[in-house]
This record gives sequence, C-alpha cells and structure tokens, in this order.
Amino acid sequence: MTSSQPSSRHLVVAAGQLGPVHVGDSRESVIERMCILLDEAASRKVKLVVFPELALTTFFPRYLLDDQELKSYFDVDDPTQGGIAQAPRVKRLFDHARSHAIDICVGYAERAVQPDGSHVDYNTSVYYSADAGKVVGKYRKVHLPGAVEPYTAAGAYQQLEKRYFRPGDLGFPAFRAPGLIDGALKKKDGVTDPAQSKLRGDPIIGILICNDRRWAEGWRVYGLQGTEIVCCGYNTTAFATKATGEMVDMSAEEAEAEVLLHHKLSCQGNSYMNACFSINVAKTGVEDGNPLVGGTIIVHPNGHIIQEAETKQDELVVAEIDLEDCRRGKEKTFAFEKHRRVEHYRMILDRAGAIEPELL
Amino acid sequence: MTSSQPSSRHLVVAAGQLGPVHVGDSRESVIERMCILLDEAASRKVKLVVFPELALTTFFPRYLLDDQELKSYFDVDDPTQGGIAQAPRVKRLFDHARSHAIDICVGYAERAVQPDGSHVDYNTSVYYSADAGKVVGKYRKVHLPGAVEPYTAAGAYQQLEKRYFRPGDLGFPAFRAPGLIDGALKKKDGVTDPAQSKLRGDPIIGILICNDRRWAEGWRVYGLQGTEIVCCGYNTTAFATKATGEMVDMSAEEAEAEVLLHHKLSCQGNSYMNACFSINVAKTGVEDGNPLVGGTIIVHPNGHIIQEAETKQDELVVAEIDLEDCRRGKEKTFAFEKHRRVEHYRMILDRAGAIEPELL
Repeated sequence: MTSSQPSSRHLVVAAGQLGPVHVGDSRESVIERMCILLDEAASRKVKLVVFPELALTTFFPRYLLDDQELKSYFDVDDPTQGGIAQAPRVKRLFDHARSHAIDICVGYAERAVQPDGSHVDYNTSVYYSADAGKVVGKYRKVHLPGAVEPYTAAGAYQQLEKRYFRPGDLGFPAFRAPGLIDGALKKKDGVTDPAQSKLRGDPIIGILICNDRRWAEGWRVYGLQGTEIVCCGYNTTAFATKATGEMVDMSAEEAEAEVLLHHKLSCQGNSYMNACFSINVAKTGVEDGNPLVGGTIIVHPNGHIIQEAETKQDELVVAEIDLEDCRRGKEKTFAFEKHRRVEHYRMILDRAGAIEPELL
Repeated sequence: MTSSQPSSRHLVVAAGQLGPVHVGDSRESVIERMCILLDEAASRKVKLVVFPELALTTFFPRYLLDDQELKSYFDVDDPTQGGIAQAPRVKRLFDHARSHAIDICVGYAERAVQPDGSHVDYNTSVYYSADAGKVVGKYRKVHLPGAVEPYTAAGAYQQLEKRYFRPGDLGFPAFRAPGLIDGALKKKDGVTDPAQSKLRGDPIIGILICNDRRWAEGWRVYGLQGTEIVCCGYNTTAFATKATGEMVDMSAEEAEAEVLLHHKLSCQGNSYMNACFSINVAKTGVEDGNPLVGGTIIVHPNGHIIQEAETKQDELVVAEIDLEDCRRGKEKTFAFEKHRRVEHYRMILDRAGAIEPELL
C-alpha cells in the first residue's frame, strides 16, 4: 500500500493571468504581453506557464457576430502546416517559450482545417513542450455554456459559445510533459509493473477550459488517468445571469463574491477529489465595459490555495510545487481502485439530463 | 427555458448533530437525546431532522472486534417484522418523530435479514416519513473507507468499515417525501409533461453517508434524478492519517483545519455542482478519547453555508429553506440536458482505478 519514497518531484509553475483584451487589440500586442510574462517567468525559474482561455482575443462569444467578424477571432490550425505552433500570427509566442525552455498551455479559438479543406471551430487549449519543441497535448472544450440562439429578453447578456464552437471531440486526454522535472522514469528504464512506475514518470497533465471546471466528470476522467496537474484557463463574467440571460437581482459586489465562490469551490473541490494540482488562470479586468472576475489560483491536491493573483491585470502568479504531494490523496482517500463502485454509476452515462422520480 | 413561478416551496429543516456516543452507552440513552432534539425541532416548526451516520452507537469501526462484540452494535432490519422502524430497541425514535409530524433521516448499523434467514451487514441510513408513517427511503453506504485487515504500523489508527460492512447494493436511489411541503403537485393532478411538473412535486431527497460526500459520482447520480435535498450524516476523525493508518505529520490544529476544509469543499462544491441543498450532520466531540470533527452545515444550492453548528455537542442546527432556490442552477449552469456530453464520460464506468498514460 505504501511506496518507498522516490526523489522529490519539485517544479516551479505559474499562471500567466492576462488583463483585458479589447475588441481590435492585435494578436501582436497580446503576444507581446504574454512574452513579457514569459521573460519574468524565466527570471523566476518557472518551467510551465498556463495562459487563459481564448487568450489571444477578446471574449467574443458575448457578441452576435457575422461570419466575417467571427473569422477575425479564429486562428487556423492546419495539421499539414505544422498546426498552431507554426501559425504565422502566433508562432512567436511558442518560439519565445522555447527560447526560455518554458512549457506553455494556451487557449485560442481554433479553426480546425479538415482533410477535405472545410473547417470546424472549437474552443481549444494546447500544451506546448519546450523540451519536445512541439504541441504534446490538445484539448477542445467539452462543456460549452450559453446558447445557440441569442437571448431575447430586454437587457439580456449574451453567451454564444454554443453558436460559435462545436463541443470538443477529443474527450479528456491526459498526457505526459517531457523535461519538466529531472529524474522522471522513462520507458527505456524497462519498468513494466504499473505499481512501480506510478507517479514516477514525466508529469501527467490534463487541460480544462473555463466552464469545464464546474463539471466533475471531466476532472474525474483526468483523475482516472493519474493526472497530477490540471491546467484551466477561463473568462468568467463578474456578474450572475439567469437562464434567460437577464441579470440576477443582487448587487455587483454580491454577484462577484458568488461567482468567485463558485470558481473556488469548483477548482479546490475537484483538485481535492482527484488529488491533483490545478493552475486556474483568468483573463480578467474590464473588456470593453464587460467585467471579468480575477481569482487566478494555484491549488494543492489537498484543496488549499497555495498562490492567488493580487490584481486584475497581466500578472504572473508563481508557485513551487512538489508532485509527490499528489501521492497522499491518490494512495489513500482517493485510491480509486479500492473505493470506487462503478456498478452504481451507470446513470452518469445512461442519461444526459435529469429525470425526476414519479409524482406521488 | 424559463418557467412561470409556482408558489414557493418553503420548509424548515434541521441537522440533529450529536455529541459523542461512548462504548457502552445504551440505545435508550442515545434515543432519549435524539428525542430531546426532536422536541426542540417541533417547537421551532422543523419538518425534517437529519441525524448522523451510525447515530445509535459509538463509531465502532475504529476497533478490531470479535463477532460477539460486533453484534452489539448492529440493529436487525427484518422486512418481515416491519423493518427498522418497528425494531424494539429503536421504535421509540420513529414513533416520537411521527407524534411531532417530523420526518427523520437516521444512520445505523444494519444487520439485514435475508429471505433464507442469513444476514448481511451494511452502513445504512433510512428516511422515515411522518406523513406516510413509514420508511420511504433507504440508502446503504457505497464508498466504504478504510480496510478489511487492520493496519499493522505502530500507532496506526484503525478504520475497519470495509471489514464490517458490505458496500451498499441499492445505488443512489432518490425518492420523494410526502407531506413535507404544502401544494406539491401529485400524480392525481394528471400532469404528464415532465417540463410542467419539474420541481413542482413532493421534495426529491437523496441520502449519502460520510465518505460518500467526497465522491462526485454519488452526488451526480442524485443530481440526475433532480434531487433537491441531500441528507448526509458523518463520523469524521479530527486528524489526518496516511494510507498506513499512521498520523500525518502536522499539528492537531492544522489537521483539524484540513479535515474541515475537505468536508466543506466536498459538501459545498457538490451541492453547487448539482444545484441542491445538503444537510450535513456530524457525530462529534471526543468518543472515548477519539476526536471527531464537528462542522455540521446546511448548504444552499448556490454553494453557500446557510447554517453551521456552534458546538461539538448535541445541537439542533435549523434553517428555513426554499426549494425554489434549486431552480436557478438546475435551469441554467447545471441544466444537464443542455450541457452534459456523456460520450466523453465512458472512462468513469470503464475503469475503477487510475491507469496512467504510458511512460515516455
């Protein structure tokens, strides 16, 4: 049940929080800001920087856009052209990260070129490994909030992610990031017993995007792959709306406090319940009059917040973590193989929506 | 998407927190304490009181017991004899609740008599409806913590639930509680459209027990049945142990703070993520030298704690709630039918334990 303690798996990570990106801000200007954060990260010995959802643009799903306007917010990801890391407008970001030997996880609006030349649009984050010199992990947002059709109530606040993006088609694929830590067990070492290699290889990473963090299913699928770090960028409005898009009747201060409560319960609760670190990073501040919450936090597998943003601007939030700290939860309370009873979970797959018990 | 607002669904509920129950304390003495809490509840117009896990006895899984000792902690539940509500030693509790027109949810060690006369032991809670005059909901703990074999490390703290109980065989069965609120829609009203009856019938209740509250799967299965109130009793040690049963190296104060953080993240996070109230009630204080945390809390569907215990003794923690408050979450952020993508959740059923990605 216990394991001999391997050498520690220390690592310095960071959330690269971004202040607002306004309509019309160029990719170049945003990437310049991100590169400045990477320079700071390098000086602080950071090995991984997580950037927000849709980091390169304003949060455009708040607007009803025509096809031409919409196109300007997307970046083309063409596998035959080297993918996003080689896309002309954004290549500089990845190259800069590599020059500092820093991994980055970054969100963008992906226009995915299909084999037949057509395209499909996703809300995507990729994980770029400086050691590998390429993208080693890709995630497309599964839990798209909002609606396809604009809300029609007077004063309604729009959330059109379901209109602009297709739900992610990649599931929740955990992956390993090479070169992040020293001394990771490798395939060439020839260890074939999973118990012997458990939590000893290159770090296991999962990606979530914004609203996904409220859905225990995504976290659990990552947990079931032994994930040690979840990277989650977000754009979250600082106020609360109803199903109609209308504002909930509460003060701005109350609403922001509630939004932050929900954010923290989701990130801290799910990190704890899956015994993983999570790096949760905001695009924040006021984008063209639209307030976004901050609350960038790095969470420990025991559920504590270990580092938190102090501003609503561009800010590097840095923490030194030890991946060994995932072990206590994964070996005891959340030793899934000992405690989970999958025969009682069937409803999780058998129905998407709730079905109430019959009336009495 | 929106619904016309029905009349409010107000209800006064309570957690019947219990202080310690020591080895040798009689059922009679414990039930007397519970009846005193029910008397207070009646005077405060409470309609539902939730009592802790294993409320009638000390938390005996901390001891290695022989069959004879073990037997003394179980209550026989024989369906041919009217079940637990008619069991001679505990009948008074249910009768007293009914005399006050109060529903109770109560945990006990169930020795379930089988058709062939043999028995199976479970860690169980039942929901007794005063209106129906019988048990209308039963739950047997699915996520049993601890181990079958005693820990052998020096100073190890035992947790033998896996030795003494079989994992629950009933899944997570939500049920409706008649008579709790006025004006509930009934089958005889002839409404056949689920959208019309949604959240308008008798309250939908689910039961969890202690460690279950840390497992998002149970909460979600209840959420997928439209559950409005989760009743969760617990006995939780006020210190932290490793997978070996040995103490984690931290001060008593730090350990208790961490245990309470995990408790609150679990109850608040999962209530929020399923848009339901939860009534989380401790057996607390020091049982024969063994400290249990308090932290009895009633949680709102928006994740707030709306009422919290002030002591580590017998204490009635009362809150007036409005089941209508479940509606905002269930109709927007957690409108499961709009947002869940079950095709990406298969791993939740396909594997019990974690399988890591291949080594690089």
